[in-house]
Amino acid sequence: MAQNTAEKTSVTMLGLGAMGAALARAWLADGHPLTVWNRGPARAAALAAEGAKDAATAAEAVAANTMIVVCLLDDTSVEEVLAGTDLVGKDLVNLTTSTPGQARARAEWARERGARYLDGGIMAVPPMIGVPEAGGYVFYSGSREVFERHQETLSVPAGTNFVGEDAGFAALHDVALLSAMYGMFAGAAHAFALIRKEDIDPTALAPLLADWLVSMAPAVHQTAQQLRSGDYTKGVVSNLAMQVAGTPTFLSTAEQQGVSPELLTPYFELMRRRLAEGSGEEDLTGVIDLLVDDRS
Amino acid sequence: MAQNTAEKTSVTMLGLGAMGAALARAWLADGHPLTVWNRGPARAAALAAEGAKDAATAAEAVAANTMIVVCLLDDTSVEEVLAGTDLVGKDLVNLTTSTPGQARARAEWARERGARYLDGGIMAVPPMIGVPEAGGYVFYSGSREVFERHQETLSVPAGTNFVGEDAGFAALHDVALLSAMYGMFAGAAHAFALIRKEDIDPTALAPLLADWLVSMAPAVHQTAQQLRSGDYTKGVVSNLAMQVAGTPTFLSTAEQQGVSPELLTPYFELMRRRLAEGSGEEDLTGVIDLLVDDRS
Repeated sequence: MAQNTAEKTSVTMLGLGAMGAALARAWLADGHPLTVWNRGPARAAALAAEGAKDAATAAEAVAANTMIVVCLLDDTSVEEVLAGTDLVGKDLVNLTTSTPGQARARAEWARERGARYLDGGIMAVPPMIGVPEAGGYVFYSGSREVFERHQETLSVPAGTNFVGEDAGFAALHDVALLSAMYGMFAGAAHAFALIRKEDIDPTALAPLLADWLVSMAPAVHQTAQQLRSGDYTKGVVSNLAMQVAGTPTFLSTAEQQGVSPELLTPYFELMRRRLAEGSGEEDLTGVIDLLVDDRS
Repeated sequence: MAQNTAEKTSVTMLGLGAMGAALARAWLADGHPLTVWNRGPARAAALAAEGAKDAATAAEAVAANTMIVVCLLDDTSVEEVLAGTDLVGKDLVNLTTSTPGQARARAEWARERGARYLDGGIMAVPPMIGVPEAGGYVFYSGSREVFERHQETLSVPAGTNFVGEDAGFAALHDVALLSAMYGMFAGAAHAFALIRKEDIDPTALAPLLADWLVSMAPAVHQTAQQLRSGDYTKGVVSNLAMQVAGTPTFLSTAEQQGVSPELLTPYFELMRRRLAEGSGEEDLTGVIDLLVDDRS
């Protein structure tokens, strides 16, 4: 449905780092009236040359519109930048990287200042912003009203996924997925290290590695089902006892190839601990229990 | 191309654990004359009831055919089981899990006994054997002649991928891919642990996690290109300095959620070490260099 510029929501964007600037350009390109502010003026001037209004202060930028999007260095920067602004009646959308605890505290802080608060966790890098086919999206949580009111505008730079009214949930989902990604990257790093001294081209290993990881990623569905039911033996193919029995092959191979096992051993150690608890018939799911401190 | 049974290669299968039995049944189902032997006789009797010849000893089983497939507990079992057999003129296909070093030594051992040797690393679990649409396959390395002579037969239980004449390469590829998988599983375990105390259904997180891992797995292609060129800055989007700057959010979130960071910290520590070497503009690829002991 084509709309003319006048119908598009006006947006204020605070923070023009790589991500903030990418978001700003996506709204500009879609015809949204945009007011920008950045601590260093050069980036704001560049956006102004592309059609944005360049506010002299954060307070002036916030005063210009109802929808205020913030994408700054960290949560401390958010507090500093918004300190001198009037947030009464504003819809504050905070896309700054933060922990769930910071997001919840910032939501309360915003509420005390008369604003409605929506937190976001961006599952994309700047080059994916404004490129729908790149598949990037943003987790949102907090005010459902703010999300629904602005969903069309929020959908311009990237896909949207509202994950709950707890303001911390967007950050929690963001951190959970990125943590899993670092685990995968750590595993891939170990794999590439193993072939370093052999006559094997890394670009020949890469497609095998990518296909294998893609084919194994859906294993998380069974893990989730087991976590929900509490029965960690359901659907097990290669049980914990068998997998622990296989770990010496992995460690010996690393040693033969001159590779430190430090990225594998913590997981293997948890597998061994869970097995020692008498859970040999289970899947690997019990490792998760060992990670969580149930006293806290 | 349909073939009648008489044209199909006769196979001897030593070892009828879960994987060996699955392989044996795939060949039986495809009409291959099959001779089996197993240390415990019950499993061999079951296969005999399905049409296999049940040899009284490993030596008798080996004598029955030229193509000898071995899938035993470990490399030591291979040596023990084959010790009293005549391997002269045999095509020995060893699908027993082993390290690259064990495979190379076993290839030499087989050569000394007059056999041609092909090693295999199975990228599948038993339920995937004989089910082509499941996508399982086997890495093979060692004798190219054995591989080419028997490729059609080897293709019956699972796909085939010959990765070189170095007998250790199949095991090396196998261990590399499975190591990467354990890294991914470790990351996913951390992700599930993070939501443990929240009102978030693990089966709601799972599809987000699976999709995200699938979308990030192709990052290994850029890693491989960087490893090949030696230029770890090419194509970088979020550089090492930025990623290290983001790690406190991950560690704080784990702490807030009562989750041990032990599965994340080793990778983060290597990222920090690489950054300290002055590689802030690089991708994460330099971590791989830190894993490899260049003196060995």
